[in-house]
Amino acid sequence: MPKRVDPDQRRTIIAEAAVRMIAAYGLDDVKLTHIARAAHCTTGAITHYFETKDDVLLAALEHVCDRLFAKMAAGSDASALMGLYEALPCSDAEAFSEWKVWLAFWGRATFVPRLAAVHRAYYRRIEDMLVADLGDDPDDARLTAAAIIAAIDGIGTRVCLEPDLWPADRQRALLVRLLGPLLATLTIGETHAPAHASAA
Amino acid sequence: MPKRVDPDQRRTIIAEAAVRMIAAYGLDDVKLTHIARAAHCTTGAITHYFETKDDVLLAALEHVCDRLFAKMAAGSDASALMGLYEALPCSDAEAFSEWKVWLAFWGRATFVPRLAAVHRAYYRRIEDMLVADLGDDPDDARLTAAAIIAAIDGIGTRVCLEPDLWPADRQRALLVRLLGPLLATLTIGETHAPAHASAA
Repeated sequence: MPKRVDPDQRRTIIAEAAVRMIAAYGLDDVKLTHIARAAHCTTGAITHYFETKDDVLLAALEHVCDRLFAKMAAGSDASALMGLYEALPCSDAEAFSEWKVWLAFWGRATFVPRLAAVHRAYYRRIEDMLVADLGDDPDDARLTAAAIIAAIDGIGTRVCLEPDLWPADRQRALLVRLLGPLLATLTIGETHAPAHASAA
Repeated sequence: MPKRVDPDQRRTIIAEAAVRMIAAYGLDDVKLTHIARAAHCTTGAITHYFETKDDVLLAALEHVCDRLFAKMAAGSDASALMGLYEALPCSDAEAFSEWKVWLAFWGRATFVPRLAAVHRAYYRRIEDMLVADLGDDPDDARLTAAAIIAAIDGIGTRVCLEPDLWPADRQRALLVRLLGPLLATLTIGETHAPAHASAA
């Protein structure tokens, strides 16, 4: 008799396997059989949940974003800069694979509108999480949030392309060099106080 | 009688066509026939110069980097921040296509060592060009150069994914928000003086 598996759990297992296999083989060369083997299921089970390769890619990105949101939420007690460390490729064992999914997704989302739309929604959500700490003027806070996101994206890209040159301490030093002066202007670097507090 | 074409000129024409076609179709879907049509040559002429699709991609990246280096060299009289505007997707009509080539290249270079090696060499050269203006301590200047590159990469990525949300003035505002505070610490923001001058 076949094992009963909760559909949500099965989706999560497949998405997590997709992250690892996209990171291992690249988006061009990853096969459904790789993902099936990593998820301990049949390729039929994968196509049952995900119709196309882009659906699998979207599920992988969803998994990556869920983990990022969880890390950002958990890090809200630390200083602003320490919280941002959680978004770097060195943050934990899975993060490097997750970054490779981001890069694969970017390369494809530029040409596939429905992927770009999902990406935009995730970035909006990340901005919303950051904006809450960045002051009273919503447009201004959103620009600062976009600057922080761009900093993380640029560093993550470099690290993915030259992992041997960017060990964890050098990733963090690069983040401090790039964002330290901006965060200092907001006075959230050490105190994590919202920006408008400094104007009071 | 067939026209005589200088081989270097033919390579450049094909590379320039590859940039436009990769930007138009995406790396997954671009065909040699697209590039041949855009370069007004046969697919045979392309395979004569470039053996594989990765060779064409490398030629496209080379073309993009040559243009970037030329823009950086030409911009050396302007302020540091104005010079960096030249690296944004809004800098001229071709720049947006060139950014899509970067993104396509990143997604693939993460998995193809010989592409990653070429990418690394280009980034080293960009860093070298920046480092000359960033102070006496070579390691420290290189970290600042890497921070500037990461800022540009992060902004370019965002703009490529959401072009309608990031018109030229907003791209520049994002660059100023992210890099203005860092450049101010170097005192090159307005004066373009090397960083060590401020310590004198």
